[in-house]
Amino acid sequence: MIPRTLFDADLEGFRDSVRKFLEQEAAPHHEQWEKDGQVSREIWHKAGELGFLCPTLPEEYGGVGADFRYSAVVMEEVAKAGLTGIGWSLHSDIVAPYIYNWGTDEQKARYLPKLASGEMVGAIAMTEPGAGSDLQGVKSTAIKDGDHYLLNGSKTFITNGQLADLVVVVAKTDPKEGAKGTSLFIVESTAEGFEKGQNLNKVGMKAQDTSELFFQDVKVPAENLLGGREGQGFIQLMSELPAERLQVALTAVAASEAAWQWTLDYVKERKAFGKPVVAFQNTRFKLAELKAEITAARVFTDRCLELHLEKKLDIPTAAMLKQHTTDLQCRVMDECVQLHGGYGYMWEYPIARAWADSRVQRIYAGTNEIMKEIVARSF
Amino acid sequence: MIPRTLFDADLEGFRDSVRKFLEQEAAPHHEQWEKDGQVSREIWHKAGELGFLCPTLPEEYGGVGADFRYSAVVMEEVAKAGLTGIGWSLHSDIVAPYIYNWGTDEQKARYLPKLASGEMVGAIAMTEPGAGSDLQGVKSTAIKDGDHYLLNGSKTFITNGQLADLVVVVAKTDPKEGAKGTSLFIVESTAEGFEKGQNLNKVGMKAQDTSELFFQDVKVPAENLLGGREGQGFIQLMSELPAERLQVALTAVAASEAAWQWTLDYVKERKAFGKPVVAFQNTRFKLAELKAEITAARVFTDRCLELHLEKKLDIPTAAMLKQHTTDLQCRVMDECVQLHGGYGYMWEYPIARAWADSRVQRIYAGTNEIMKEIVARSF
Amino acid sequence: MIPRTLFDADLEGFRDSVRKFLEQEAAPHHEQWEKDGQVSREIWHKAGELGFLCPTLPEEYGGVGADFRYSAVVMEEVAKAGLTGIGWSLHSDIVAPYIYNWGTDEQKARYLPKLASGEMVGAIAMTEPGAGSDLQGVKSTAIKDGDHYLLNGSKTFITNGQLADLVVVVAKTDPKEGAKGTSLFIVESTAEGFEKGQNLNKVGMKAQDTSELFFQDVKVPAENLLGGREGQGFIQLMSELPAERLQVALTAVAASEAAWQWTLDYVKERKAFGKPVVAFQNTRFKLAELKAEITAARVFTDRCLELHLEKKLDIPTAAMLKQHTTDLQCRVMDECVQLHGGYGYMWEYPIARAWADSRVQRIYAGTNEIMKEIVARSF
Amino acid sequence: MIPRTLFDADLEGFRDSVRKFLEQEAAPHHEQWEKDGQVSREIWHKAGELGFLCPTLPEEYGGVGADFRYSAVVMEEVAKAGLTGIGWSLHSDIVAPYIYNWGTDEQKARYLPKLASGEMVGAIAMTEPGAGSDLQGVKSTAIKDGDHYLLNGSKTFITNGQLADLVVVVAKTDPKEGAKGTSLFIVESTAEGFEKGQNLNKVGMKAQDTSELFFQDVKVPAENLLGGREGQGFIQLMSELPAERLQVALTAVAASEAAWQWTLDYVKERKAFGKPVVAFQNTRFKLAELKAEITAARVFTDRCLELHLEKKLDIPTAAMLKQHTTDLQCRVMDECVQLHGGYGYMWEYPIARAWADSRVQRIYAGTNEIMKEIVARSF
Repeated sequence: MIPRTLFDADLEGFRDSVRKFLEQEAAPHHEQWEKDGQVSREIWHKAGELGFLCPTLPEEYGGVGADFRYSAVVMEEVAKAGLTGIGWSLHSDIVAPYIYNWGTDEQKARYLPKLASGEMVGAIAMTEPGAGSDLQGVKSTAIKDGDHYLLNGSKTFITNGQLADLVVVVAKTDPKEGAKGTSLFIVESTAEGFEKGQNLNKVGMKAQDTSELFFQDVKVPAENLLGGREGQGFIQLMSELPAERLQVALTAVAASEAAWQWTLDYVKERKAFGKPVVAFQNTRFKLAELKAEITAARVFTDRCLELHLEKKLDIPTAAMLKQHTTDLQCRVMDECVQLHGGYGYMWEYPIARAWADSRVQRIYAGTNEIMKEIVARSF
Repeated sequence: MIPRTLFDADLEGFRDSVRKFLEQEAAPHHEQWEKDGQVSREIWHKAGELGFLCPTLPEEYGGVGADFRYSAVVMEEVAKAGLTGIGWSLHSDIVAPYIYNWGTDEQKARYLPKLASGEMVGAIAMTEPGAGSDLQGVKSTAIKDGDHYLLNGSKTFITNGQLADLVVVVAKTDPKEGAKGTSLFIVESTAEGFEKGQNLNKVGMKAQDTSELFFQDVKVPAENLLGGREGQGFIQLMSELPAERLQVALTAVAASEAAWQWTLDYVKERKAFGKPVVAFQNTRFKLAELKAEITAARVFTDRCLELHLEKKLDIPTAAMLKQHTTDLQCRVMDECVQLHGGYGYMWEYPIARAWADSRVQRIYAGTNEIMKEIVARSF
Repeated sequence: MIPRTLFDADLEGFRDSVRKFLEQEAAPHHEQWEKDGQVSREIWHKAGELGFLCPTLPEEYGGVGADFRYSAVVMEEVAKAGLTGIGWSLHSDIVAPYIYNWGTDEQKARYLPKLASGEMVGAIAMTEPGAGSDLQGVKSTAIKDGDHYLLNGSKTFITNGQLADLVVVVAKTDPKEGAKGTSLFIVESTAEGFEKGQNLNKVGMKAQDTSELFFQDVKVPAENLLGGREGQGFIQLMSELPAERLQVALTAVAASEAAWQWTLDYVKERKAFGKPVVAFQNTRFKLAELKAEITAARVFTDRCLELHLEKKLDIPTAAMLKQHTTDLQCRVMDECVQLHGGYGYMWEYPIARAWADSRVQRIYAGTNEIMKEIVARSF
Repeated sequence: MIPRTLFDADLEGFRDSVRKFLEQEAAPHHEQWEKDGQVSREIWHKAGELGFLCPTLPEEYGGVGADFRYSAVVMEEVAKAGLTGIGWSLHSDIVAPYIYNWGTDEQKARYLPKLASGEMVGAIAMTEPGAGSDLQGVKSTAIKDGDHYLLNGSKTFITNGQLADLVVVVAKTDPKEGAKGTSLFIVESTAEGFEKGQNLNKVGMKAQDTSELFFQDVKVPAENLLGGREGQGFIQLMSELPAERLQVALTAVAASEAAWQWTLDYVKERKAFGKPVVAFQNTRFKLAELKAEITAARVFTDRCLELHLEKKLDIPTAAMLKQHTTDLQCRVMDECVQLHGGYGYMWEYPIARAWADSRVQRIYAGTNEIMKEIVARSF
């Protein structure tokens, strides 16, 4: 009922094409991908061909020079369709921007076109076992040794972990320092000593490959130090955090809207005690409350998207947004499962998967507790 | 952290003048007004002189032809200052618009200038004892008798009930009909047979006069039938509802923002167990959660305000907004009281009054249950 | 901190033996059972040998004549261990009591010993596709035809659906009647025309076989009409409902207590930002709030258990209990997942499974909405 | 639906007499007491005559040697009747026990009979301005000076502050020490230098006198040091805390039960949109949810009462109980106000006062945040 003024006819046209592509090329494979624990390389290649990967990159790097709204459309449509195995958002809007915004010309020329085409799948390796959202606690090291760095350490909860060809790795180049000793490296998965651990078995997001990664004396060429200067890692990470949190919010709200609509459709059709479930006041009130909350979150998110387009989205606001929308998403999924009754617990129903998939949104990309701490620091 | 782009420098200047006026002319009297159960006539007159009443009316009717943002500024500043006895919002933005939008030229010429100057205080008499938010259940009657109507019935919970000189009364001109038999009348408080009941003793909003009104064979001149045609009452009421609900939301969010800020100031200064209360993680997290919710509600409200300025705010969206923001307001007040400890329960602390004042926002202007029902009807 | 006075030393000894048995004989197989979608027959047989099945049956029927507290111990230990695939509670404390309380002597003699030994696995087939918790809407029919009934219909969400050898089926013997036309039948899974549908793929409870069942012209011998009289189905079902809801509550609270303890252990050991997670006030407060809620629910549940032992647990109280404890269980699991961070989303962590497993508790055995309706009818 | 087995026929008889007394002698004066900001001395004297004050004291000290259940009955009936101005619970079950359990024989003989008769009204002065629930932060001092102590300091939020004749004051006898330097004194209100500040204006509990107290060089006779030994204050305070928190819980649950019942009565009678409000599913579900929560809290509270009678109620359990029941009480009052619609905001309706009265329960007797901290310390 509130028009999304940021999205004009061009964008809606693009949205249609993304939606149709997902319906035809992705949705039919989702069940298999869940069994496989990862999506196919083929879907990445197709998406690359159609310009759905890295749309914001300039043409010289294989993108179409679009603004971030195009990325937003892609991630919204993926989220609405419940295709949580598809890790394009991270790839296009976190990994590629690291390289584009911070990389050397050589790094950009070498890697960005391959990310845009889907030839390489990107990942970012930040979290370590036992360290959680605490960047200061990074224990992986990358020690300069002539023309390369010797990378050692292990990472966990890495999205796109199995498929990844290119991993941006956070490591300490100066282990005695905290933030100042932190650097980012572009590491190719073919590097010797780089081992991918098992594909983690998660409660949901079953088509998403999430893995541990191990680095044992991996020789990373010195020219793969992101931006070419040591100690920039913390600043580089910080610079992309608002965008990452905005992305999580965009998917949270899109998924919530979709789930709400599925549920409305369900309760209109489904009967209990001789009348449609939507006729019960409890159903009506729950859906009305959720509608209000989702609408508020939608407007909040679009406003933050607008600020992001103007490069004005600040860190505390993005943190609030991530916390608020993902908390809401989980509430929405929970209520919508309940309104589906027993069917809401059956994996074949989208709402069931959406419930299980959504739970991690409050945890990754910085737990919601971390988000609150970030907001509180701004007081 | 999110700029309110609807409010430009002119409006911020206007806001400053309203705020200063309230600080100097209203706040010092609030305690007395609470004892009196109503504000002074003087504050109405002063506000009228300064153009704070009915700013959206054209100059010919005593306004300044401003758009609704000016009204929004006035009600926000009143809300932030906790001056809940001041019933200008109802007067300027509900009562006057009824007459301006629906009245005959004669009605407009006769009453609007007096409302704009504060010479007359306006009220609207809709709710009846035992009927609540159910408009269909109106029992008051206004039966045509030559050149006047004979008005009988009683009303309750009437804001500005003691001060009111002009009351827009909802009555049945055709008691056999429901909505179609409903009409609105402009009734002057000096009319014979019009009696004001006692000023109701409420939990909060103690400076606001809220009253029962009784009509016994009140002769209302036929020319005081709003718009001059019978049976238009329901349509007239419906037409102003989104605006009324937006107004409640504007005050809810402004009051929430103010309470949040008082609380932050308090917990920064106040110490417990040897450190400022703001240093405790519980305090930080509660304030961060509220900040996120208030920010979302603020953006949602401003978007609805924008739609209202474009005459595009629909009934279900306004209903969602009213429900959502007032539920939030009460949660905010409750948490903020708690963060004040014992002082939060002391009437002299603004947060204590704000807590008690806020509770009615979920009840009047259509209970939040009614709001949900309205939203659900749009499914 | 509040002693459970209902459980004396004998019962605690019994509890130890159950726990050890489950640790040794069940827990090591759980992962495989999840893959299989059902537990082994072997675990049923072993449990039968040890007297863990149907302990409340008299010795003549293969039980040990224990009171319901022994059943409670078994289901609590199964719940605490997260062995949600094991459907003994339904079997021992719903199916067997139907036969014991309502069956003819012949029915009792024939079936109860086999249930007590685990030779037969029991199930109850009530819910139908599209009918949910609405007993009045049962469409399955069992039409008398000489010395047997012809059973037709389909059922869904049937716990122990794949393993079941004996199914108590709800059907209409007089389809023109509502409750009065409803009867229960003891149906053996070997009967011709009785087909088990697929094992349903659920969000959690993955080791529990939950299935659709189809009956096509199944000839059920007339002597398998439960109790031997038609039209008693509704009364029979009603009579066991408080016990069933108490059982759900017992598992809900036991599972909540276990999850709380796992989480405390986890946050004591786990470090973040240089200190144990339990040192953060948010962690402390969340755990303290949950502890209070779980304690209240524990005392409430034990009081209802006591009433049940005295045959005084009424229907509305049991309904409140089921709704209250399962709502709590889901809140507990959700908070505990969050306190585990990313590990809370990994299937190998018990809390992750407990989260997914718990969700159905608010849905089955009568949705929590039905529970509220039942409570409200008692007003 | 769950019998309260702790209360036998004798106690129910006592309960009847307390209820009738309150109906006849207290309720008719409540409105006046609210205006006065305190109850009458007369009601204290009458209660003393009837044995409603200090019933647990032995006969030699003016009590009737009853067990704590009699005290519980008195405080429950006061709470149910909404007579929140009556501070007997504090007087009978906190102040008198301090003297009885810790006082010297002389102190007991001198003061207890006067407390039992209502000749003296008791209070306890613990909280100081700016110190909140932090006992370590006590700044009042009592310095030995020959045969007396010189007491200096100020206290705030003192219940029975205006009526009090006898105040148990917490002060530092050794200001350099923390807990070990803390002592309690029995101070008579007639002592020179003891000044009662204004009666604080609170949001609710308007008939309860809550005050600041000032001590300037008050000479407290050395024999009025509670128990006769310095440095025992902390232990003495700790010893009575579980009882105090149990008392708050008893009133919280009793008040909740009463409010729930008023609301059920109201929604049964009140009509909206042509049917009783109780017929709406939202009403039914809200009341059912509250009923379940109140029932759980009732059983939890009675279990703690039972433990208290057995002297087994530990500090963390009492803290959980206080936090849990008062949080619930406020939720109950809030929902019940909403179900009353506009009338819920009118002071003349008991639910309105109960809402305002209840809010302080989460704050005093140790804030609920302190309760959680206490629980967490036991982890």
